[in-house]
Amino acid sequence: MKLDKRSTVPLYIQLKELLQERIRQQIYAPGQQIPSELVLCQELTLSRPTVRQAIAELVSEGLLVIVKGKGTFVAAEPERVELKGFHSASFSLLSARSLEAMNELLVETLTGDADLDKLFGLTGTTGQAGYWSVTWQQEEDGQRYVACQSVIPVYMFPELGPDLRQGKRMVDLLANKYAYLPQKATCRLYVRQARLEESRLLDISRSAPVLVSTSRLLSRSGNICEISTAVMRSDLVAVGLDSGRS
Amino acid sequence: MKLDKRSTVPLYIQLKELLQERIRQQIYAPGQQIPSELVLCQELTLSRPTVRQAIAELVSEGLLVIVKGKGTFVAAEPERVELKGFHSASFSLLSARSLEAMNELLVETLTGDADLDKLFGLTGTTGQAGYWSVTWQQEEDGQRYVACQSVIPVYMFPELGPDLRQGKRMVDLLANKYAYLPQKATCRLYVRQARLEESRLLDISRSAPVLVSTSRLLSRSGNICEISTAVMRSDLVAVGLDSGRS
Repeated sequence: MKLDKRSTVPLYIQLKELLQERIRQQIYAPGQQIPSELVLCQELTLSRPTVRQAIAELVSEGLLVIVKGKGTFVAAEPERVELKGFHSASFSLLSARSLEAMNELLVETLTGDADLDKLFGLTGTTGQAGYWSVTWQQEEDGQRYVACQSVIPVYMFPELGPDLRQGKRMVDLLANKYAYLPQKATCRLYVRQARLEESRLLDISRSAPVLVSTSRLLSRSGNICEISTAVMRSDLVAVGLDSGRS
Repeated sequence: MKLDKRSTVPLYIQLKELLQERIRQQIYAPGQQIPSELVLCQELTLSRPTVRQAIAELVSEGLLVIVKGKGTFVAAEPERVELKGFHSASFSLLSARSLEAMNELLVETLTGDADLDKLFGLTGTTGQAGYWSVTWQQEEDGQRYVACQSVIPVYMFPELGPDLRQGKRMVDLLANKYAYLPQKATCRLYVRQARLEESRLLDISRSAPVLVSTSRLLSRSGNICEISTAVMRSDLVAVGLDSGRS
């Protein structure tokens, strides 16, 4: 990559991109000191303010770090949480083997919500029984990376709320529930801005991008038994998918 | 959701969140006019500057739109491109059935790249033959939503470059190549800031978040036959996954 002094793209932006490229190619490796402003000015025949502005922006974007009295360093790349073998039921409560990884587990009841009735396709008494809303968060290395919510019809799992509050084990929660357990799932992954509550839970700035997974889980009978939403820190998470072909 | 006047969260931010909630719940539907500043002041007993600031921020974030002389409206939700049945080979060149959807297809040769040799595990003559780098973009409804790059070893597909330049069909490109075609793939999805070139290709602002999928495709023999990277506009794309359980 070369700087083009006749381009309409400001030079400091071109320089930013060039420095980013060198960081990506590990010409400047994570944790390593980059050349001083003066050296960059000379190497690329740029003015001091241009170099300063490019560096300032990379610092504010977190790619570079200034260590006082020492110089400017490449920030260490954040280790991403690798969600290996991610699938549509990855953050489903009913598909979980244990509740161990679920922090701050909270159960509430939702009733009289016409939108939910429509979403689940429930009418009459099955809808009137309402829904369990179960929320929790998950961490890795002490770093919270996902906030989850699971909505489950009460008529399918009438004891789920009390059982969760009593701290029962997953196997006991789902015993004799074979007909209602998830058999199939579809999921939609997309990026949007964090909402206020999410930014608090995940310790990110308001309007930071989050990776959202919304899953619809179907029981044997084809009824929706759970709708789960996982809001992931997009700076911390990488989703891994595998597929074979036959 | 209610406003909490004793909270440490500024009122205009609480109001922003409340308005966002109403937009989400379609109490204010896409394209619909929202109540005037004065009406919101009265309803929620807020001061005019508080209401004004909340609305101004939602306008700058693109959720609300001011129509001069008419009022403030909920922006129409952008239609996302739904990538249904997304899988690890979704943006693979060698797995594509046709080249039709690939716009601005460009083939280049990469040689003497030690990083690529390492990535593909190639040494000696197989590595020296270099790699085809094929780039293209895809659109839906005239809207470019993804920029793709595919890297393929030349020794496996020596005619790929000339064949693509001549506009040959996919079936002809891959004829008699059974041993080298992808059989298995793994893929990693994550969010990062757009790079300069990507922001130009996808017509987004520099540093806008993009959803990146990097796939490693393995041939029958277990060798990597392709590494494909797709950089998606995170505001335009939703990835759909399905899974059954047995």
